[in-house]
Amino acid sequence: MNKLSTLLVGFGVVGRGFTELLLESREVLANRFGVEVKVVGICDLKWGTIINEDGLDLKRALSIVEGGRRLDIYDLPAKRDLSNLEAIRETASDTVVEVTWTNIETGEPGLTHIREALNMGKNVATTNKGPIALAYRELMSIAKAKNVKLRFEGTVLSGTPTFNLRWYCLAAQEVKAIRGIVNGVTNFILSEMESGISYEEALRKAQELGYAEADPSLDVDGWDAAAKTAILANVLMGADLKPQDVKRRGIRGLTVREVLDAMKRGFKIKLLAEISRNGGSLSARVSPELVPLTDVFASVSGVLNALRFETEALGEVTIIGAGAGGKPTGYALLNDLLDIANALPRR
Amino acid sequence: MNKLSTLLVGFGVVGRGFTELLLESREVLANRFGVEVKVVGICDLKWGTIINEDGLDLKRALSIVEGGRRLDIYDLPAKRDLSNLEAIRETASDTVVEVTWTNIETGEPGLTHIREALNMGKNVATTNKGPIALAYRELMSIAKAKNVKLRFEGTVLSGTPTFNLRWYCLAAQEVKAIRGIVNGVTNFILSEMESGISYEEALRKAQELGYAEADPSLDVDGWDAAAKTAILANVLMGADLKPQDVKRRGIRGLTVREVLDAMKRGFKIKLLAEISRNGGSLSARVSPELVPLTDVFASVSGVLNALRFETEALGEVTIIGAGAGGKPTGYALLNDLLDIANALPRR
Repeated sequence: MNKLSTLLVGFGVVGRGFTELLLESREVLANRFGVEVKVVGICDLKWGTIINEDGLDLKRALSIVEGGRRLDIYDLPAKRDLSNLEAIRETASDTVVEVTWTNIETGEPGLTHIREALNMGKNVATTNKGPIALAYRELMSIAKAKNVKLRFEGTVLSGTPTFNLRWYCLAAQEVKAIRGIVNGVTNFILSEMESGISYEEALRKAQELGYAEADPSLDVDGWDAAAKTAILANVLMGADLKPQDVKRRGIRGLTVREVLDAMKRGFKIKLLAEISRNGGSLSARVSPELVPLTDVFASVSGVLNALRFETEALGEVTIIGAGAGGKPTGYALLNDLLDIANALPRR
Repeated sequence: MNKLSTLLVGFGVVGRGFTELLLESREVLANRFGVEVKVVGICDLKWGTIINEDGLDLKRALSIVEGGRRLDIYDLPAKRDLSNLEAIRETASDTVVEVTWTNIETGEPGLTHIREALNMGKNVATTNKGPIALAYRELMSIAKAKNVKLRFEGTVLSGTPTFNLRWYCLAAQEVKAIRGIVNGVTNFILSEMESGISYEEALRKAQELGYAEADPSLDVDGWDAAAKTAILANVLMGADLKPQDVKRRGIRGLTVREVLDAMKRGFKIKLLAEISRNGGSLSARVSPELVPLTDVFASVSGVLNALRFETEALGEVTIIGAGAGGKPTGYALLNDLLDIANALPRR
């Protein structure tokens, strides 16, 4: 049995979605892949820290936090009172799952967590966009030097295959361009506006459903999409961009009239991320674009995401799927851990 | 350098598409993947056989056959006068690329070629639907016993990722259902009929463009889709079906009125392959279905193909891309060879 001794840093929606999935998948992981993922620590600024090198009772940890209480009341043997960084340093885990909150200006605290874990010779799986958007090259070079793996499938399109699709399935292809709908909140708002309601009303609905934050600027001003665009450009097209370097226009201020007029003329308005190579230079931008109703992108509605790779021999390949959510994003981490354990593929 | 010594059996559209791609990709294969694919033989019932264990001049072979002449006039040292089967037996190749024509009733001659190659301890990459639809289990068990690999990414959706998508990117997921548009000819005909032309007219256009055969029954009666459905069911959902076991209804006899009426009511008619599990039993069928205009499948037009995996944690993941063509199908073989050479992934 291939054992991963794992420290989970971050116990929010994604951390808990991953944990649930891990509980559901234990038998499949063991029987089909020969992999055991032992969680030896959970730490979260809000919920507290519990560490036990023999493995934690994940069901108990989940039920405590889902009951709104801190992990302090976990009633089995565990070390507590360690900060996130101390936990990374002081546990004997070989793998760190980093799923704290995203900050695309500084990448912190995730960036420090990941850098520290890699420097200590631990593998890292993360869905945290900030560190990968801001420091992909630095982090990959630490991983290489330390002979460990850094995986981040869930940073774009949650668990819907993105990087693995390119690396495993479109391997011997140059990617000439990437276009996509990579932000679910704005796509939801635009889809709602197609039924004739205003931007403000659609945003309110997105907030009520828990899709959009109270301050929606990261989504509606295109910052989230710009971070994902930077990640795609840097990882898959050899660029070296920060989210700030991506030309960016969001959907704030778009009127329902513009949306409906576009539809009358045979188009939908979609917030597209676009990266393309023109000769030696690479352009990367996020902006609301007219998409013909005959284009598959036009029927990617609500919180769905989509990504299209333009390649030489195969032409265009488009993948469509979930772009957010605890379990879909947690799923990316599970696939990353199988990759870290060298357990892929299992036919 | 990881060298594959390869015998190419079949030099039709796919065999030549693969060969062109190989020529274009040589540097990428060597520099990025450390793989050299040396073609030591080409054999084709129509074009003849040339074998040289030191490697053939692929450009020369291509230009001869594209000029409409037999490989007999290849003017470099080569063994000739071997049948396909003799070539498989008598060349020292470690890998056979099998791309002869498809027969979904007997699987021949591909089935015998593949069985023989595997039994001799050679890896096989194929895009030939017949053998995989009819004898997947038998062939996989030979491959296992001989410790070689059998890959067939191009049998469904040409080079658009299908099996690799499931094995590498959706690994730890049960697949609950698969639905898709897996036949380009019928999808082209249906798309044409949406503009108001008759089935007969649309079929003629498909024939003029070289998409459909003079006898179109394999496509329009759903046999091609049924073979792909059997492959998907057997390989990805544990079934043991022959193409004949798939419930099948084609598009012959469909009227333009039905197509236009459906559109008025907000639907398109698509020939769908559908495999789903209901409790312990598995149902597999091919039939023209009403697809809502809001469904992504409705905007998959012309010869494009699409496949949707329904999974527990991730929900639905849909991939859309080329379903046929020399280069797209040849691309599947190239990815299969990288897989055979254990060269995936290259990040």
